[in-house]
Amino acid sequence: MAAALYDVTGIGNAIVDVIAHADDAFLAANGIEKGAMTLIDAARAEELYGRMGPGVEVSGGSAGNTMAGFASLGGRGAYVGKVCNDQLGSVFRHDITAAGVHFATDPLHGGAPTARCLILVTPDAQRSMNTYLGACVELGPEDIDEAMIAASQVTYLEGYLWDPPRAKEAFLKAAGAAHAAGRKVSLSLSDSFCVHRHHDEFLDLVANHVDILFANEHEIGALYGTDDIAVAVEAVKGHCEVAALTRSEKGAVIVAGGQVFEVPAAPVDRVVDTTGAGDLYAAGFLYGYTRGLAPAVCGRLGAIAAAEVISHVGARPEVSLAELVKGVV
Amino acid sequence: MAAALYDVTGIGNAIVDVIAHADDAFLAANGIEKGAMTLIDAARAEELYGRMGPGVEVSGGSAGNTMAGFASLGGRGAYVGKVCNDQLGSVFRHDITAAGVHFATDPLHGGAPTARCLILVTPDAQRSMNTYLGACVELGPEDIDEAMIAASQVTYLEGYLWDPPRAKEAFLKAAGAAHAAGRKVSLSLSDSFCVHRHHDEFLDLVANHVDILFANEHEIGALYGTDDIAVAVEAVKGHCEVAALTRSEKGAVIVAGGQVFEVPAAPVDRVVDTTGAGDLYAAGFLYGYTRGLAPAVCGRLGAIAAAEVISHVGARPEVSLAELVKGVV
Repeated sequence: MAAALYDVTGIGNAIVDVIAHADDAFLAANGIEKGAMTLIDAARAEELYGRMGPGVEVSGGSAGNTMAGFASLGGRGAYVGKVCNDQLGSVFRHDITAAGVHFATDPLHGGAPTARCLILVTPDAQRSMNTYLGACVELGPEDIDEAMIAASQVTYLEGYLWDPPRAKEAFLKAAGAAHAAGRKVSLSLSDSFCVHRHHDEFLDLVANHVDILFANEHEIGALYGTDDIAVAVEAVKGHCEVAALTRSEKGAVIVAGGQVFEVPAAPVDRVVDTTGAGDLYAAGFLYGYTRGLAPAVCGRLGAIAAAEVISHVGARPEVSLAELVKGVV
Repeated sequence: MAAALYDVTGIGNAIVDVIAHADDAFLAANGIEKGAMTLIDAARAEELYGRMGPGVEVSGGSAGNTMAGFASLGGRGAYVGKVCNDQLGSVFRHDITAAGVHFATDPLHGGAPTARCLILVTPDAQRSMNTYLGACVELGPEDIDEAMIAASQVTYLEGYLWDPPRAKEAFLKAAGAAHAAGRKVSLSLSDSFCVHRHHDEFLDLVANHVDILFANEHEIGALYGTDDIAVAVEAVKGHCEVAALTRSEKGAVIVAGGQVFEVPAAPVDRVVDTTGAGDLYAAGFLYGYTRGLAPAVCGRLGAIAAAEVISHVGARPEVSLAELVKGVV
């Protein structure tokens, strides 16, 4: 096999986050599902934005956050996602490129604007996300460069790609191209509501197409219809080569080559905003994986990257993760 | 005199800040004047943005920050400034409105985009600002509603308004309308380079049109051609009813009714980003002033508001300032 040009290529919904603080009463008054990612249309986005407090705009998108974190660790990454050629699209493009990630997907010209996610952070640091997909609905298989996928050691896909209509075709084309080239396919289940929306298709994906799976305990429970992490561990053993099942402050359970490893969470002085915790966990884990490190070390890298991102507002690292993990790798 | 509808109406350049971390080497390599506000054109803005690291977008503009802080304290405020009807203009409008400030200036349709300020924050928490004025250059006297100014106890103007070509006409129209209605006019000198650019006009303004002056020690020194704060204090005594001269961690000197008061700075655990310090000082001070509080109490309110804003990235308060000043007012 040829040497990989990229360690990881991430494919996802290209989104700019609009982050504001809110209390539980605001969530209740506006019918917002706490802790979840809810899809909203343009009219609802406008209505909700009008009611929200002042915000901060920062590039986001689950796989985009993962790739920014991956580059911050020193990894060679690429990203595929659809923005519009508007101001927020320029912001997204600048930020991911400035983070050191290759990003060459053609933007949409006119039509729906760049996607935004209205994120309400409550005093308990929990985030509730309301996503208007905008230009993301135009991502399709024509945006997948099979040669780039074949030149990537791992192709990483966010489960949220199942929401827009044609992104799943892009997703399957990329997974096929990766496997045809002898590369690995990784998936994040993204959100338990997302798992419920696409349950049967996700089960087929995990059983038949995914080598490296990321899920939190709620998502893996939704996939296998169980509240028992031990049951989920046994189920995923037969499906994926590697699975990292995260459990917030309880750490993570890693299943690799039939073995199970428990890795504690990394310490955090103060949890400010949990947005991006799973995305950055995947960044750290994949950084270790693509360097051939042991599963428990991969888990430790994931935990450190996640701990950094939940210590501040926003879902991308604010310091060099490569500096943070010195001594671990 | 009729009761005021607004305590303060602020007029300024309506700007969205794009904030990124950088080191001194980056400033040197890109010819950026450390600590200053430098005006840049569209081409330079694009070039510099391309070189900057990932950023955070947050509504700014000196007087805009002041009014957001003023509303956070519980004051009734209005704002006048020119955005374009583009995405960043919508962000600016949303944020200042959501902060509780009345904002009704017509946006520009087409033409130059909403202004942005590329802010590089160095590890010493100093900020270096690079402003592309965009739509701000279209602010003119037609944007001043004289009835609104007459209904405002104080009209607050940022010195930066002297930079775009027609804003000074708006500035003078507003000052005239305020005085004709028996109201007060307040000015921030904004930046020592700005004072140098418009020295003679600023001196005339301060001597003849301004009741309440805000300046840091460098700006007041530039105005009166002295490095000696005592000399500046004597000079300003003859010009303005009230002057608040800020000296960073050394606190502030307040000149009011011929008397001089020294007010210490408020404690800050860690200075993260000094952007907005002067803007929020003015917010706190004017909150006290419009409630008829003693000059030293006004100064203490300014110090507390400034301390909050320099403890985090971004130039607008992240917590309720009304909560912070409980016990002082």
